[in-house]
Amino acid sequence: MIYLFTDFSSQDFYVGQLHSAVLHRNPDARLVDLFHHADPRDIEAAARLLARLSEYTASDAIIVAVVDPGVGGSRRPLMIKADGRWLVGPDNGLFSFIVRQAESVDSREINWRPANMSVTFHGRDLFAPVGAMLERGEMPDSTPCEVVMPDWPKESGRIIYRDHYGNLMTGLTERSVDENTVLAANSQPIRHAERFGAVNAGDVFWMINSIGLVEIAANQADASACLGVSVGDEILFQA
Amino acid sequence: MIYLFTDFSSQDFYVGQLHSAVLHRNPDARLVDLFHHADPRDIEAAARLLARLSEYTASDAIIVAVVDPGVGGSRRPLMIKADGRWLVGPDNGLFSFIVRQAESVDSREINWRPANMSVTFHGRDLFAPVGAMLERGEMPDSTPCEVVMPDWPKESGRIIYRDHYGNLMTGLTERSVDENTVLAANSQPIRHAERFGAVNAGDVFWMINSIGLVEIAANQADASACLGVSVGDEILFQA
Amino acid sequence: MIYLFTDFSSQDFYVGQLHSAVLHRNPDARLVDLFHHADPRDIEAAARLLARLSEYTASDAIIVAVVDPGVGGSRRPLMIKADGRWLVGPDNGLFSFIVRQAESVDSREINWRPANMSVTFHGRDLFAPVGAMLERGEMPDSTPCEVVMPDWPKESGRIIYRDHYGNLMTGLTERSVDENTVLAANSQPIRHAERFGAVNAGDVFWMINSIGLVEIAANQADASACLGVSVGDEILFQA
Repeated sequence: MIYLFTDFSSQDFYVGQLHSAVLHRNPDARLVDLFHHADPRDIEAAARLLARLSEYTASDAIIVAVVDPGVGGSRRPLMIKADGRWLVGPDNGLFSFIVRQAESVDSREINWRPANMSVTFHGRDLFAPVGAMLERGEMPDSTPCEVVMPDWPKESGRIIYRDHYGNLMTGLTERSVDENTVLAANSQPIRHAERFGAVNAGDVFWMINSIGLVEIAANQADASACLGVSVGDEILFQA
Repeated sequence: MIYLFTDFSSQDFYVGQLHSAVLHRNPDARLVDLFHHADPRDIEAAARLLARLSEYTASDAIIVAVVDPGVGGSRRPLMIKADGRWLVGPDNGLFSFIVRQAESVDSREINWRPANMSVTFHGRDLFAPVGAMLERGEMPDSTPCEVVMPDWPKESGRIIYRDHYGNLMTGLTERSVDENTVLAANSQPIRHAERFGAVNAGDVFWMINSIGLVEIAANQADASACLGVSVGDEILFQA
Repeated sequence: MIYLFTDFSSQDFYVGQLHSAVLHRNPDARLVDLFHHADPRDIEAAARLLARLSEYTASDAIIVAVVDPGVGGSRRPLMIKADGRWLVGPDNGLFSFIVRQAESVDSREINWRPANMSVTFHGRDLFAPVGAMLERGEMPDSTPCEVVMPDWPKESGRIIYRDHYGNLMTGLTERSVDENTVLAANSQPIRHAERFGAVNAGDVFWMINSIGLVEIAANQADASACLGVSVGDEILFQA
């Protein structure tokens, strides 16, 4: 199974070309569109989301992830085997949280190149075909290499994603909080609740969300609007 | 074939997790993304759309439908066999129009639970796996139960959906109108036409749309903008 | 493989009904959502994009393309075999650039009709089933006919698409430019660069993009916002 994670959006024709590139090489490939709305300028946020989402893929998943502002430059193309899953994409930090938390890591620079490779769309021309090869059990030409590991903190109070309901996901996991933790945004205290129905309509609370991140939500309301905060803002721990 | 109908949107990563959950259990499952932009706070509108769209699925379809503001609360998880199709989702009225119009109905509360179930994402953890089991011919543990049947009128002049062209769908079907019916919105009369080309460019008209609902449209224009009305507004019958 | 190209958007339920219509007739069909955000009122732009995107489909692709403001009127339904690929859709110019550049063209009016055909959704009721039949090797009833060939220039400086990054695609291909060509928009000169990293952050440039069109882009920025131009505006050749 090949999972796709990109900043290509569902509005343009880039995702369709990824699918086409995979199915062209492997008509029986199963594709899952994991996420296509990563912020193209925030690799750290994308890396955090990808690390959490990867936990919910098959244990032998092939994950093709492309958030790649340096495409066409000198960043290396990577394929990494991490605890059974293959990761394919640019060496710009996108896989660093997964690599950190993995027990076994085999990282390789991809040397294989297609007959024709565009300068700006390595997702279609390089990464998707490599994913298709891996799914067929073929090993593209590659050599062991190190992975770029940016100096990003393991836990971060920054809001890394706002979903379409207005829920706000932070870079914090359950390691940093317990049920008594009180968070704060815009000078407003935010207490824990386990689920939406446990607070009054319109009330803001935090919970551990379905992918293991600390999330600020509101019952039957838009937490982002209620608080006046959004992606990039910092959530604080109340003294 | 498993059809998905949700309020998860195509922008977030929730739909990808549904696909992943189904394919994890049944790699050969065929999935159709029927609709992912239901209004999360308007179960009645979602129920009307679902009832119409279900008519255009395979006669042995499995429809997993999740518009579920009460997730984590006490509403029951349902699986309903209605005229050959399986419906899987929350017991909050979402299936009530289908149940009303079905000739044979076998409704069951789902007792099966996964090893790990999040509090807020039963679509991924409960409903999608049940859909996958049903497609493989397995019967999840369940017991007969009643279905919540809200007191919603069979026919309603309320606008329940605005598509991206600006067409406005109502909760009326052909049972309520004939070709001489004149509707009204914002004090403007709206007459019947069979198709776009039958009126002048910019003119507003009503028709029976491709899923059997009374729809207000405009030739080469945005009916919603022309009339100054949108979802939630009432369409009247002109005296 | 059946590729879909439409103006149906990913927000409404029209694409799901296309998938459903294909899989209903051919459960093993492979579907690729090539593009669903064509401008419904700009057939010329859609025709230019389709011609470029078709180059990146399988050599025996079946492309169902529906940008069809005249649905329900007298425009003919077409199936065209062009250099090995089947094209299925309305006879309104949408396929004219592909036909012009093809070496072998067999164009046919579709006479086959389904038992039930809505007036407004021939994508679901006519074109998708025809695509499914062609993929199964069946020939729908049809008769040879001419294709509408609008008087659109082969090359055009008009901006035909703005992607979600803010990149601007024109109707020019590499035939019209070389590396020394200087373009202009809003009195600002635009020079060639091969890739994003070759210019400073925030700088605007033009390149041949990944589907062979002249594209105005900006390094780590939104070219459309930088220049104050968007779809429909003309890019000039600087004297």
